[in-house]
Formats: sequence, structure tokens, C-alpha cells
Amino acid sequence: MSSLVDTTSRTDILNRLKRAEGQLRGIQRMVEEGEPCLEIAGQMSAVRKALDSTYVRMTVCFMQQELQQRLSLAESREDELAAVLADVQNLLSKVR
Amino acid sequence: MSSLVDTTSRTDILNRLKRAEGQLRGIQRMVEEGEPCLEIAGQMSAVRKALDSTYVRMTVCFMQQELQQRLSLAESREDELAAVLADVQNLLSKVR
Amino acid sequence: MSSLVDTTSRTDILNRLKRAEGQLRGIQRMVEEGEPCLEIAGQMSAVRKALDSTYVRMTVCFMQQELQQRLSLAESREDELAAVLADVQNLLSKVR
Amino acid sequence: MSSLVDTTSRTDILNRLKRAEGQLRGIQRMVEEGEPCLEIAGQMSAVRKALDSTYVRMTVCFMQQELQQRLSLAESREDELAAVLADVQNLLSKVR
Repeated sequence: MSSLVDTTSRTDILNRLKRAEGQLRGIQRMVEEGEPCLEIAGQMSAVRKALDSTYVRMTVCFMQQELQQRLSLAESREDELAAVLADVQNLLSKVR
Repeated sequence: MSSLVDTTSRTDILNRLKRAEGQLRGIQRMVEEGEPCLEIAGQMSAVRKALDSTYVRMTVCFMQQELQQRLSLAESREDELAAVLADVQNLLSKVR
Repeated sequence: MSSLVDTTSRTDILNRLKRAEGQLRGIQRMVEEGEPCLEIAGQMSAVRKALDSTYVRMTVCFMQQELQQRLSLAESREDELAAVLADVQNLLSKVR
Repeated sequence: MSSLVDTTSRTDILNRLKRAEGQLRGIQRMVEEGEPCLEIAGQMSAVRKALDSTYVRMTVCFMQQELQQRLSLAESREDELAAVLADVQNLLSKVR
């Protein structure tokens, strides 16, 4: 399976991963400073959601790239593709 | 967002849902017959996985339908589309 | 590992499983009647949450039963145990 | 809800969080170096599992601490408590 080549997509994914990394460091601080477990749990749940949505985002970016490359779409079809991808992102975000 | 119109896709999704329903009834029997909690937990985990993979399947069927309809693909492109969809299903199955 | 013996706990778990089974049948109807995929996705997400909270409930019921049996708690300690179990249920519900 | 006071538990949780942070940085490198999406997906799934098991671990450590403190268990009961907690950890690890 190919990799993400589009720079905008890559930057988007990287920024999300960096934010999740920052959240994880924040949770370590919370543990060290003796914050209540329930607050820590809340933050862990937030990182999990952030990772899940990064995953969905990466999948959608991958689909866009592959479909554009392999289907050699006419420009007139780009809007249709964008609409389908938006629906898919919507669907995938429902469950995670 | 549109619904699944393809009969094969619908039947596939319905069969998966029926199987999950059967599993859920099996779990109820296990509770009634006093089976060990760990076994029940294992079965609940199995239903969850079955539902998650039904979800992925539905998303992929939806994508296929929408892309075929809205991009009016030449038949020569169908294989390319199938390859992208197989990759996406693979990606989505990784995390669930 | 032992099974759930407390009748109230069992009935609670069974009722939750029955509700989830009903939800699953509802989703099958939605697929058959051609409801939009996004609505179906929303319902599938709801069943998943219902199963997850049944799982948490079963774990907490199991803990209560085992701790009461194996620690032979004085009645004066029952409130303390209930408080800890409520916190645990709270913690576990955060992430699912 | 109280916080984790036991040093061993805290260190265990912190080490798990640090490992997850390291994994997240590894994923960023994979994105930057253009690794295939499927491998990245596999690593993201691994971090998710690591976070989930950290969550379970924190919950079990919390239970142990609270039950010991609030139930003022006789030493002769510590083994029983440990056995229940091992079962609970087992149960919770089943589904995540």
C-alpha cells in the first residue's frame, strides 16, 4: 500500500500527532502532580479520540490521493469525489 | 446522505447483523445459565468486533456505490476502484 | 473465574442485552427499508455504546460480588465498598 | 475522586505513558519519511492499545488503593483482594 504524498495531508496528520503527543505529556504531568484519577481518565479519553480522528483523517486523505491518481478523474468530477469523501469521513466519525 | 441500494451489499450487511443478533442471544443464555463472567466477556468482545467489521463493511459498500454512481467510471477503471476500496477496508480493519 | 450469582445483577445485565438485541433488530429493519447510511451508522454506534456499558456494569457487579464474598466485609464497610465501586464505574464509563 | 498515591503504581503508569509518547514520535517520523499508510495504521493501532491498557492499569491501581484504605483490610485478606483485582484486570483487558 502506498504512502501519503500530498504535503497538506501530511502536515495535517503530523500536526494532529504532535497535539496528541503534547496531550500525553500533559497527562504525565497530571500523574506526577497527583491530580485526581477521574480527571486523568478524562484526558486519556481525549487523546484516544484525537488518535481515532487522526486515523479517520489519514484514511480519507489516502482515499483521496489514491482515487485521484488511479482513476485519472476529470476536473469536473473533483467536486463529486470531494462530496463522497466528506460523507465517508462523516460516517467514520460517527462510531469512533 | 443516501442509502445502500445494491442488493448484494444489503444482504451482506443484513447477514452480519443477524449473526450479531444471534451472538447476543447466545450471551443472554450464558448469563441465565450462570457461565463464568470471563467467558461472557469474551463473547461480548466478539459481538463488538462483529459490529465494528459490519460498520467498516457498510462504509466500504457505501463508498463503492457512491463513487460508481457519481464518478460515472469507465469499466476499465472498475479494477482500480476495487483495489483502492480493498486498501481502505484493510486500513479501517487495522484499528477496530 | 466465577459467574454472576446475584439475581438483581443478572436481571440488569439481561435487560441490557435484550435492549441491545432489540436495537440490532431495528437496524436490520432500517437496512431493509433503505434508510440513509448515516442514520444506520448512528444506530450502530448506539448499540456499541450500549454493549460497552453492559460490559462495565457486568465488571462492576462481578467486583461487588467477589469482594463481598471473599473479604467477608462487616456491614459497616458496605457503604465504603459501594463508594469505591461507584468511582470505578465512573472511571470505566469515561473512556468507553 | 482521589488520586494515585502509591509510588509503584504511579511509576508504572508514567512509564506506560512515556512509552506511548515514544511510539507517537515514531509515528510522526514514519509520516515524515513517507512510510506506507498501512504500517502507520498498524502503529497507531498499537498506541491505542497501549493507552487502553494504561487505562485499565490505572483503574485497577486506583481500586486497590481505595479498597485497602477504605476497607482497612486485615493482612490475611490481602491475597483475596489481589485475586479479585487480577480477575478484574483480566475482564477489562478482554474487551479493549
